Amino acid sequence: MHANTPSADPLIIAGRSYTSRLLTGTGKFRDLEQTRAATDAAGAQIVTVAIRRTNIGQSADEPNLLDVLPPDRYTILPNTAGCYTADDAVRTCQLARELLDGHTLVKLEVLGDARTLYPDVVATLAAAERLVADGFDVMVYTSDDPILAKRLEQIGCVAVMPLAAPIGSGLGVQNRYNLLEIVENATVPIIVDAGVGTASDAAIAMELGCHGVLMNTAIAGAKNPVLMASAMRKAVDAGREAFLAGRIPRKRFASASSPVDGLIG
Amino acid sequence: MHANTPSADPLIIAGRSYTSRLLTGTGKFRDLEQTRAATDAAGAQIVTVAIRRTNIGQSADEPNLLDVLPPDRYTILPNTAGCYTADDAVRTCQLARELLDGHTLVKLEVLGDARTLYPDVVATLAAAERLVADGFDVMVYTSDDPILAKRLEQIGCVAVMPLAAPIGSGLGVQNRYNLLEIVENATVPIIVDAGVGTASDAAIAMELGCHGVLMNTAIAGAKNPVLMASAMRKAVDAGREAFLAGRIPRKRFASASSPVDGLIG
Amino acid sequence: MHANTPSADPLIIAGRSYTSRLLTGTGKFRDLEQTRAATDAAGAQIVTVAIRRTNIGQSADEPNLLDVLPPDRYTILPNTAGCYTADDAVRTCQLARELLDGHTLVKLEVLGDARTLYPDVVATLAAAERLVADGFDVMVYTSDDPILAKRLEQIGCVAVMPLAAPIGSGLGVQNRYNLLEIVENATVPIIVDAGVGTASDAAIAMELGCHGVLMNTAIAGAKNPVLMASAMRKAVDAGREAFLAGRIPRKRFASASSPVDGLIG
Amino acid sequence: MHANTPSADPLIIAGRSYTSRLLTGTGKFRDLEQTRAATDAAGAQIVTVAIRRTNIGQSADEPNLLDVLPPDRYTILPNTAGCYTADDAVRTCQLARELLDGHTLVKLEVLGDARTLYPDVVATLAAAERLVADGFDVMVYTSDDPILAKRLEQIGCVAVMPLAAPIGSGLGVQNRYNLLEIVENATVPIIVDAGVGTASDAAIAMELGCHGVLMNTAIAGAKNPVLMASAMRKAVDAGREAFLAGRIPRKRFASASSPVDGLIG
Repeated sequence: MHANTPSADPLIIAGRSYTSRLLTGTGKFRDLEQTRAATDAAGAQIVTVAIRRTNIGQSADEPNLLDVLPPDRYTILPNTAGCYTADDAVRTCQLARELLDGHTLVKLEVLGDARTLYPDVVATLAAAERLVADGFDVMVYTSDDPILAKRLEQIGCVAVMPLAAPIGSGLGVQNRYNLLEIVENATVPIIVDAGVGTASDAAIAMELGCHGVLMNTAIAGAKNPVLMASAMRKAVDAGREAFLAGRIPRKRFASASSPVDGLIG
Repeated sequence: MHANTPSADPLIIAGRSYTSRLLTGTGKFRDLEQTRAATDAAGAQIVTVAIRRTNIGQSADEPNLLDVLPPDRYTILPNTAGCYTADDAVRTCQLARELLDGHTLVKLEVLGDARTLYPDVVATLAAAERLVADGFDVMVYTSDDPILAKRLEQIGCVAVMPLAAPIGSGLGVQNRYNLLEIVENATVPIIVDAGVGTASDAAIAMELGCHGVLMNTAIAGAKNPVLMASAMRKAVDAGREAFLAGRIPRKRFASASSPVDGLIG
Repeated sequence: MHANTPSADPLIIAGRSYTSRLLTGTGKFRDLEQTRAATDAAGAQIVTVAIRRTNIGQSADEPNLLDVLPPDRYTILPNTAGCYTADDAVRTCQLARELLDGHTLVKLEVLGDARTLYPDVVATLAAAERLVADGFDVMVYTSDDPILAKRLEQIGCVAVMPLAAPIGSGLGVQNRYNLLEIVENATVPIIVDAGVGTASDAAIAMELGCHGVLMNTAIAGAKNPVLMASAMRKAVDAGREAFLAGRIPRKRFASASSPVDGLIG
Repeated sequence: MHANTPSADPLIIAGRSYTSRLLTGTGKFRDLEQTRAATDAAGAQIVTVAIRRTNIGQSADEPNLLDVLPPDRYTILPNTAGCYTADDAVRTCQLARELLDGHTLVKLEVLGDARTLYPDVVATLAAAERLVADGFDVMVYTSDDPILAKRLEQIGCVAVMPLAAPIGSGLGVQNRYNLLEIVENATVPIIVDAGVGTASDAAIAMELGCHGVLMNTAIAGAKNPVLMASAMRKAVDAGREAFLAGRIPRKRFASASSPVDGLIG
């Protein structure tokens, strides 16, 4: 009996295969060297970049993120952080495509509110439709609403990315049943995006069957970002393996003849 | 900045140093080959053996656990599973010492109840005193009562092993504040023993600052024990690293000026 | 110092004042007599009626709900349960208005899925706009998405009714932070609708600051519906009073100098 | 079908019958008038008094608690708050018996630690044995250890009072399964003592089947203690009624054929 190995259990997004299920953000680090070291410790193969805030070539004289995270080694995932309308988000994706020579994989987020950074799901649906029609491979940040997650998949998004909790909150998975519902009905990868605070939060998301986790603040905001990146890498793999391994049911004690019965929660 | 590596962060029990913080039980597996494979996948260096139920040489004609888990590679930790009195537990430890040629490291458990397998803490205190006086290095299974945990340390136990939840329940950590209180006041290793169900449970225990986790059912009872062993190994390391890395505080959202305030729980 | 009494703390919906904050459904009871007894024990003043499933006069020969819950004693709240499109929901409200002689207060729900009964929030927004334009006073069932809750208020809904968990699930409040966010930003009453399972669930919703709770299955599906109705009445009042009374902060122990710090959750 | 009324469902302690299941402490209030008003709003019939800190006649010149809470209207329950040894606790009970003319009902608590106020269960067992032998009716504060709870019952205590969480913490029930285990095995009343923070916490304890709740800080420390006392009264009754009424099982959604299965927790 072999343990499933990462190579036997790839994450496939837009036709491309990844062994890592931990996607990382590139913002909020102290400097580019820390970005590089944390990304490396995370084992990330997909790194997301806020096009409006990050220099990936727009400013020729300033440090370029792509120097430390070169596109031949990482899948660069431009995102629309800071966009509050569908128009803005679509334009930002188009800008990214130009900057990255025709690159079509993007992470769409349309925010509803600067205070909570909660998504505007109506504008998100509209932007997703336009981007898919325009040939983009859209990974889409959304709430944990199972109906909307399915609709985004039906629009043609290549991955749906529900939040665990508000961006930067570190609260961990707030609604396990919604995530479970989304995962069980999905035919595209479900990547938890936002809200993870520590390693166990990432493991919980993966144990629900989610296919990956994307995070930035939980790593960049830790006291030791590089060590936390390593923790998250292991937690994501641990959660994936635990999901595949099939956990024991929760019972009141070993001798109980059946699992907990839903009366105590 | 280096990530803390296991070699820089050893678990020291009774003067001996371990790189692994996942201790495993040896019961409930399908056969000795599965025991071996799962123990290997767990990366365990300390394996606990129920002296009353396991052949480690008492029956010369039957398969011997020590053939697959040789004492020169693993620290064998005899335990008193199935003992309901201090006398029984003490006798069982003495038998183990004989069988293992003077070996003094034991895991004491005195159960209060066959249904819940909850510890009898009064008998546990009595047995711990006798065993320490008799020269044993006692790792002791107990409830999550912080006062008792401290007392067991003061008696001279080399590690205190509070439960997360009842043995074999898979319920995960039921009382985080009790474990935190125990850990913060301890001068010996605190090893969570019993109740872990899946990878995130182990990570949570470690994130509280516990120094290790011991489990058996969660691995042996999984659909794929070897893969779950691998998951648990990663989860324990992930939780340890997340603890050391210093997580971000939980806030209602990124823009909140202070952590959650204790009014919502 | 006086305790706030219900009369001093009314719930005001569409300009009308209520002393009860527990709204009840009228379906799923054994018979009309049990409906009447449970509604009475609940102290409900607003009772919701599924227009497509309940006889309030459409079938002259069959038992009429309004005989046991007469509109001169109860505010009848027609709802659009079973509607999966905005068109259906709008038509159902118009039918209710006819049946109830110009009655304009309705509870809008547009479902996205027969399995989960989760709302279709996009269709809900569309229907809400049409109903408000048509002169209805719309109380609206929605998800716990704070952005959408605010938008429904801005459209002109007289109350926003986020779910605690899926209809009929009994899971209780799944996402406290979302409800809190909705409540703190609202200028209309927030009534938790769906997902309550037992008394403490209702109390928790009210302690978050919600202005009322609507339930049906938790009462009608209990072994003793009338007694559960009484429990829910007390729980809603208890939660309201606790919210107004200002609870003590959660601390690790009495001597702790500050509340729990957001690192343990 | 009648709702169970309090008179049909009395709490019986030491042979005496009570309609109220909310026991309250008398410390930490602003003044005796607030003590009286809050006790009245709580509907408490048993009030506990810290003999070492409260004047019930020891100091003839100072305000006497019994003037506002006269023993002919309330069952006075002297407690041993502040005692850290069995000897101290026994002496304090004997002093109370003298001061109250042969009164035998006492609440025993022997603390293990001034910081956490967690009980010293070993000293508690010893003191309980001595007090029972000396003719006291002993209600006993203890941890949530099911084995110890049973032992205290077997010693002859008339009620066992496990904590929900540390005294004054307001954390609410930390270990539901332990309380459930205690309640299901008990033949004397189980009164949750300590740790309740708000109304829903009290309801949760009662929904587990506990027979009553004792609290002080949650009421006295609220911004409006009298209103919180009223909230707690309703919450305790709500939880009791919900327990008796038989809640619906927790399911993922209404259409699910079985309750939640113990894999998600």
